[in-house]
Amino acid sequence: MRQSQLFTKTRKEAPKDEVAKNAQLLIRAGFVDKLQAGVYTYLPLGFLVFKKIENIIREEMNKAGGQEILMPSLHPKENWEKTGRWDTMDDLYKVKDSSERENALGATHEEVVVPLAKKFIHSYKDLPFSVYQIQNKFRMELRAKSGILRGREFIMKDFYSFHKDEKDLADFYEKMKGVYKAIFERVGIGEKTYLTFASGGSFSKYSHEFQTATDAGEDIIYVCNKCSIAINKEIKSEQKSCPECGGENFEEKKSIEVGNIFELKTRYSDPFELTYKDEDGSDKPVMMGCYGIGLGRLLGTIVEVYNDENGIIWPEAVAPFKAHILAFYSKDEEKNKRIVAEADRIYESLQSKGVDVFYDDRKDISFGEKLKDADLIGIPEVVIISEKTLEKDSVEVKKRGERQGKLVNIKEYAK
Amino acid sequence: MRQSQLFTKTRKEAPKDEVAKNAQLLIRAGFVDKLQAGVYTYLPLGFLVFKKIENIIREEMNKAGGQEILMPSLHPKENWEKTGRWDTMDDLYKVKDSSERENALGATHEEVVVPLAKKFIHSYKDLPFSVYQIQNKFRMELRAKSGILRGREFIMKDFYSFHKDEKDLADFYEKMKGVYKAIFERVGIGEKTYLTFASGGSFSKYSHEFQTATDAGEDIIYVCNKCSIAINKEIKSEQKSCPECGGENFEEKKSIEVGNIFELKTRYSDPFELTYKDEDGSDKPVMMGCYGIGLGRLLGTIVEVYNDENGIIWPEAVAPFKAHILAFYSKDEEKNKRIVAEADRIYESLQSKGVDVFYDDRKDISFGEKLKDADLIGIPEVVIISEKTLEKDSVEVKKRGERQGKLVNIKEYAK
Repeated sequence: MRQSQLFTKTRKEAPKDEVAKNAQLLIRAGFVDKLQAGVYTYLPLGFLVFKKIENIIREEMNKAGGQEILMPSLHPKENWEKTGRWDTMDDLYKVKDSSERENALGATHEEVVVPLAKKFIHSYKDLPFSVYQIQNKFRMELRAKSGILRGREFIMKDFYSFHKDEKDLADFYEKMKGVYKAIFERVGIGEKTYLTFASGGSFSKYSHEFQTATDAGEDIIYVCNKCSIAINKEIKSEQKSCPECGGENFEEKKSIEVGNIFELKTRYSDPFELTYKDEDGSDKPVMMGCYGIGLGRLLGTIVEVYNDENGIIWPEAVAPFKAHILAFYSKDEEKNKRIVAEADRIYESLQSKGVDVFYDDRKDISFGEKLKDADLIGIPEVVIISEKTLEKDSVEVKKRGERQGKLVNIKEYAK
Repeated sequence: MRQSQLFTKTRKEAPKDEVAKNAQLLIRAGFVDKLQAGVYTYLPLGFLVFKKIENIIREEMNKAGGQEILMPSLHPKENWEKTGRWDTMDDLYKVKDSSERENALGATHEEVVVPLAKKFIHSYKDLPFSVYQIQNKFRMELRAKSGILRGREFIMKDFYSFHKDEKDLADFYEKMKGVYKAIFERVGIGEKTYLTFASGGSFSKYSHEFQTATDAGEDIIYVCNKCSIAINKEIKSEQKSCPECGGENFEEKKSIEVGNIFELKTRYSDPFELTYKDEDGSDKPVMMGCYGIGLGRLLGTIVEVYNDENGIIWPEAVAPFKAHILAFYSKDEEKNKRIVAEADRIYESLQSKGVDVFYDDRKDISFGEKLKDADLIGIPEVVIISEKTLEKDSVEVKKRGERQGKLVNIKEYAK
């Protein structure tokens, strides 16, 4: 894409009420716009990153056997009364329709997916199976001060698995730990993300969170020195040793919860009487697991982990573009013609090879400003074409974050 | 995909309160599920169709130069007060947040996109440009009786263009007519879809709708015998001749509005004071156009146009799968082994070639039921493998809707 065509621009300042670094950087670089506290628009650059994250998650969910669906946001009150959460979930938005019937705005989707499953599950032969969606959630956060880490409205991948017994659920749950690990590795935060023991509520001893270590985190985890698995604060107060390996030495870290997995067991199948007929003819409750990842939160976490004083440094797998061509125009008309021609040629050549490339072809923007914008936007590879590089028939190729790149022969760079 | 793995099943009956044929067929065939009036879940088969439609629309919007973004659903009341629609739009959902601040649930997005554009448009050099999104809308329909044609919650593509003068807007608007035509042709309803003159409100003489002729339609259009352009009911009462060619003979048809385009001009730029500095230094209002397509409505319209007494008949470009393999198992163990082996081989061979294929490998389902389900689901090509076809080393290949297919040598069919 030509940068001159992009309708957004970088900004010198983020809104004054925006205290979170992820949102400050994303707003200044033109990835998101803030509509109100906890409510953001994804702008073209942010949308590209969002789609890359979405595709990685979708691929891994499909590999895990999930069938993709799309559930709505307007949920009948009755469904939420059945699980008791109409009254107990504080952050549920409630809205009346034209007949004064009350609806919940979907904060999560057990109240929809369980009655849906009940329409199709009758026998042990219908189990196991899994469904998931990538869909908008609404939660009435009291203080939405963490940028896109904690929105009032945010897109989440929620995956639900259905099983005939605890053993089958437990096996699948173990498998999903690996699936989640693969996702966080693919988006570039694998090394800093810890499988973390959390409370399982009244149905299971533990659930698990995936926590990414960063100073911007609102959570605190204790990473076991022996096995590198963590426990969260709630567990830590009850438990002195590591539930995984028995280790007793922990390192305290600030962290962001980027995903969670939960053995729901019959927590939601019971109120909806979701049962199946087993081989022996008896009716048994369906066992469920649920597995969530907030896409905006994941995007914001990547920004919190990968940035420096000049801007964002995107990991390659989720970068909006792979390369950022910066054309530094010359006042000498002849020389300038060559800069334009060579930059255009490289742009088209990379595109024709299927490389996502961003091309700063803006006139009337200084050398210094282009470099500053490129640092702020944070595309992994920067390619500089100027009078100076062309004197050596070269372009300067530098990784984002590097002070100095290296000259590469222009014919070599884009054959 | 193996049909035995799909968690949904076909149903003999649609819910009793579902009177629209599109929803009856889509529910019975397992494409959608009804959560409440006007609120549906896309099930795995429906999600596949939805994504094919979405991709076609996205491709055409990108070709038209649209920059994709994603705006939120929780809109501050102030924005809707500015345009006057907080009080005048009857079907607007209103919801309070934790601080008792009121929000509109996005029914359309002029109230968000205009203040967004205002942050980036300063000069004539910033124009023209276009943005679009594919996003959920909420409208409090009084009677949601048309299945997925008219939802209380529905996904829409909304595209907004920004221009420096009426001429530039008018040129772009003309271009978008062609873009819309291309979309309706690609999804398979081009021949039945008419460009239709509609009222332009107080700002323009006309706007345009795209109306698809079908007896299920709630609208009425008058198609000019001379130029095949239509006028809607509202215009017809004021105007006796065709505004396009002056023709005076019309054919009345029932129809569904599948898209609309509108020259907004300064209707929304004015209240938000969206202006730009022109070359001569003066401040001028930005001219806008908007261009909408409801994805669910388009999907439902395709079903209304393409069905028979046995079920849906998907056009190839939007079908959930290209081919549907039906394995008819035999009671003879040896013969059955061969059926399974050959059907598996064809399934894998087609998949390896990148053909989307659905494979009815269900045991304990009769020949008759498999055929009935295939007719209901409506995949364009049905491939039957049975004892009988294998006696002739063949499969029977038939188009959906055909009574009798033709035998094709099995080695030929999936080389």
